[in-house]
Amino acid sequence: MESRLLDHRERVLAPGSIIGILGGGQLGRMLAVAASRLGLITHIYSETADCPAALVAQQVTVGAFDDVEKVLAFSQSCDAVTYEFENVPALSAKAAASAAPLRPGARALDVSQDRLAEKSFLSAQLGLRVAGFEDVNHVHDLRRAVKRLKLPCVLKTRRFGYDGKGQVIIRAESEIDAAWEKLAPAPCILEAFVPFFREVSIVAARGIDGQIAAYPLTENVHRNHILHTSQAPAQQDDGSAARMAGQILEQLDYVGVMGVEFFQMEDGTLTVNEIAPRVHNSGHWTQNAGCTDQFEQHIRAVAGWPLGDTSPLHGVVMTNLIGDDVKNWKGLAAQAGTHIHLYGKSEIRGGRKMGHINQKI
Amino acid sequence: MESRLLDHRERVLAPGSIIGILGGGQLGRMLAVAASRLGLITHIYSETADCPAALVAQQVTVGAFDDVEKVLAFSQSCDAVTYEFENVPALSAKAAASAAPLRPGARALDVSQDRLAEKSFLSAQLGLRVAGFEDVNHVHDLRRAVKRLKLPCVLKTRRFGYDGKGQVIIRAESEIDAAWEKLAPAPCILEAFVPFFREVSIVAARGIDGQIAAYPLTENVHRNHILHTSQAPAQQDDGSAARMAGQILEQLDYVGVMGVEFFQMEDGTLTVNEIAPRVHNSGHWTQNAGCTDQFEQHIRAVAGWPLGDTSPLHGVVMTNLIGDDVKNWKGLAAQAGTHIHLYGKSEIRGGRKMGHINQKI
Repeated sequence: MESRLLDHRERVLAPGSIIGILGGGQLGRMLAVAASRLGLITHIYSETADCPAALVAQQVTVGAFDDVEKVLAFSQSCDAVTYEFENVPALSAKAAASAAPLRPGARALDVSQDRLAEKSFLSAQLGLRVAGFEDVNHVHDLRRAVKRLKLPCVLKTRRFGYDGKGQVIIRAESEIDAAWEKLAPAPCILEAFVPFFREVSIVAARGIDGQIAAYPLTENVHRNHILHTSQAPAQQDDGSAARMAGQILEQLDYVGVMGVEFFQMEDGTLTVNEIAPRVHNSGHWTQNAGCTDQFEQHIRAVAGWPLGDTSPLHGVVMTNLIGDDVKNWKGLAAQAGTHIHLYGKSEIRGGRKMGHINQKI
Repeated sequence: MESRLLDHRERVLAPGSIIGILGGGQLGRMLAVAASRLGLITHIYSETADCPAALVAQQVTVGAFDDVEKVLAFSQSCDAVTYEFENVPALSAKAAASAAPLRPGARALDVSQDRLAEKSFLSAQLGLRVAGFEDVNHVHDLRRAVKRLKLPCVLKTRRFGYDGKGQVIIRAESEIDAAWEKLAPAPCILEAFVPFFREVSIVAARGIDGQIAAYPLTENVHRNHILHTSQAPAQQDDGSAARMAGQILEQLDYVGVMGVEFFQMEDGTLTVNEIAPRVHNSGHWTQNAGCTDQFEQHIRAVAGWPLGDTSPLHGVVMTNLIGDDVKNWKGLAAQAGTHIHLYGKSEIRGGRKMGHINQKI
């Protein structure tokens, strides 16, 4: 078993090898395309057959993510397995890891799936600054926690939140009951409100040999809790975000690309908001910056290849195409200097990420 | 019928539409990847199921290129049809064009499939300089032709030549019989030898609205008759190659990307060597130059979209990975500033194009 693990740990995938990707959304799609460039084959595991990644991958297995047997069989057909979303069930991750190198590993999932575990890991184990937080399992806990953290604050479910889903801002004591009603009975975490100056993120990678490569700091603007633009390199980068990302990658013995989101104060202080153990929307600009893009970087790490360049040749601003934005595809295609990336989603819904554009700045 | 043709002529493919690609090699593969970026779906028609493009396309139809019925059925399932190689049989092209817009059209195939038709078109119809040439159908023709064109000269089959296949250099009269034996009974063309200073090419595109966009002149170096490197922008470009490419595109009422190869004399004079009605190996550098790459450009044209930028942000040199070159994939991956593109071919053969690398210069 020990030698099997060692083999897993060090396995390098030659061209022609198969990478399994748990999840078939746009991130899986762009990972599959990057893998094809390196002569690697992708096998997608998705809940639906007509997912965005299915159109560009060699093979698709349709199954539930908690179908441990199916995930195991899928992983046995792959030379390495990765994922495009952090909510892979723990038992499925364990099954995958027993059959093939799972990169990043299960520990990254454990930490990032649960906001309480994540904040504890970042603050207690790494000594990084995070927003004040309190464990909330009952409305009484919530009242006590609001007193400690002060108003305003944000109640969030510990699990399965994204794009502003699973969270409520509490601005007055009178809103406590309604906030709890909205999210209960899910285990929650109350977070102090961070009066940030701007939001920034770092996308960084770690290889199987421990090599770390970070892209430059990226400045993000959200609209309605959904990422609107990411611009890189961000002004005023003192390198501390990249250092923190490096610490996180080391501590998790991580292999692959990770996104780390920060709140930044006017004095430059960085508070870690959350980590995503996968390629990250704020790293899409890397596709048109002249360096190795984050999707290829992740595939390189997962395949055990050397990491690629992370220095852009010029600045880039990425703008997400949300919902009806995509209807302007023809206008965007006609716009000079605009690189379009569409995800092949046929159904347009409000708030749905349909594509993005990258523009040189 | 007239209105159907007009509909064909002007049809614009919205994201989610299906582009059929005749041919499943590396060009089809990179076209499929580019299409996916634009939210377009690809359906490959290939003689083999395990072709390079099959791994990244949504659907593959396996069939012979001269199976007119099968090509027709395939084309009926597509919103537009294109091809990655010039030897699509005329009847199959006609069948495809009856079912969907065929871009580029059948005329481009007619002209480029036959070296005699090609040279006649370029010289007689467009007045462009080509190497002296003579139609050769018999060893007697060949003797006469050698007298007219002088030695050395090159005997080529009119059809199906590529990468130096189907051609013999004749340096002495004593070699005439052997040259003929080697290629007979295929209809041939004898071409005068052009004592060129360098080989250059232009990749240019034309949209459904007649818009033309050319990439900068590219300088090519061949080894053993196979393209070794392409470097762009080439030094000393007076724009005449792009102008000639534009004339060719106009005259053929062409839609899509075309490659035009030239011999250049020391005084700058350009002789057209051949045209390729498809994306071209000497345009692979466009993938890592910051502009729209030739594969996306071709897909844009085929889909009836506006053409993209053709101005590189910096110089690039492309080097083909031929045969065993690909075994150094790990060394190449570790090399800074090197973008690797592998074609997913499992069998390595001498002279086989396995991939390429692009490097900023």
